[in-house]
Amino acid sequence: MSMHITVILAIVLFPLGAGFAIRHNADEPVPFPEGYRKWVHIRTGLIGPANRNFQFNGGFHHIYANDKGMEGYATGNFPEGSIFVFDVIEGIEKDGNTAEGKRRLVDVMIKDSIRYRSTGGWGYEEFKENSKTERVLTETRKTECFNCHTKQKDYIFSDWRE
Amino acid sequence: MSMHITVILAIVLFPLGAGFAIRHNADEPVPFPEGYRKWVHIRTGLIGPANRNFQFNGGFHHIYANDKGMEGYATGNFPEGSIFVFDVIEGIEKDGNTAEGKRRLVDVMIKDSIRYRSTGGWGYEEFKENSKTERVLTETRKTECFNCHTKQKDYIFSDWRE
Repeated sequence: MSMHITVILAIVLFPLGAGFAIRHNADEPVPFPEGYRKWVHIRTGLIGPANRNFQFNGGFHHIYANDKGMEGYATGNFPEGSIFVFDVIEGIEKDGNTAEGKRRLVDVMIKDSIRYRSTGGWGYEEFKENSKTERVLTETRKTECFNCHTKQKDYIFSDWRE
Repeated sequence: MSMHITVILAIVLFPLGAGFAIRHNADEPVPFPEGYRKWVHIRTGLIGPANRNFQFNGGFHHIYANDKGMEGYATGNFPEGSIFVFDVIEGIEKDGNTAEGKRRLVDVMIKDSIRYRSTGGWGYEEFKENSKTERVLTETRKTECFNCHTKQKDYIFSDWRE
């Protein structure tokens, strides 16, 4: 009888163990979003010197979404594997015209409800300039990402503008 | 003998006639670039109030290229059917951050060396706001497009930024 209980407990507890194992992977780095420059351009903003975020994010920020991200806009639910990129490019103003300069940062959000459960199912990362390996998002700023995106429906700020 | 000459002349002159017939189509309207919002985003600029072009083109201008346009960047020669879009979106500034407003214009360039021979092989058009039929490019401004683009290699201003 006690053997039966052990087996039942093992069956019941196995998914929890697996869950813990997956959660243990929460620190696995968010991969660089290869090929995002040819994904769909969602919209753009420009943070100028007068804005309080200029030091970190000053310049153009272009938002791109992969196919799954686009599917999320269409259905209202972002599927696993949805990726959004916030591409920060220096803005150079001359005679009232602002042109693009060098890349400053590539910020990424990727949907993985299990791996990034502790941050609402989205993983956050930030790559420096044109590097695909130099990660510059501190834990403090990662928490800021999450706390700010939490205010949005399904954590996404940018709506799709046709 | 004279019949032979007539036949030969007809053969020789036919392509010229066909050429004239095609040139006669130079005024055929440049089509609206259906689906361009999901083409590759090349780059962006922002024309502010201090710029002399603000009245006509003030706001964000996003450049998009179709697959043939992208092929042109890769090979150095833009093939027939290359299309570039200059999408003009109002810029709304608040606290040093400029966000997108409404669409103002959709400008188009399409490569067709025969049809648009008189303007360097590229046809120019401009659509008002979100309309796919309301064409607002006057002949004078069309000439301005051509004259300004002439200064560029193969008439294209925007280089592809990875």
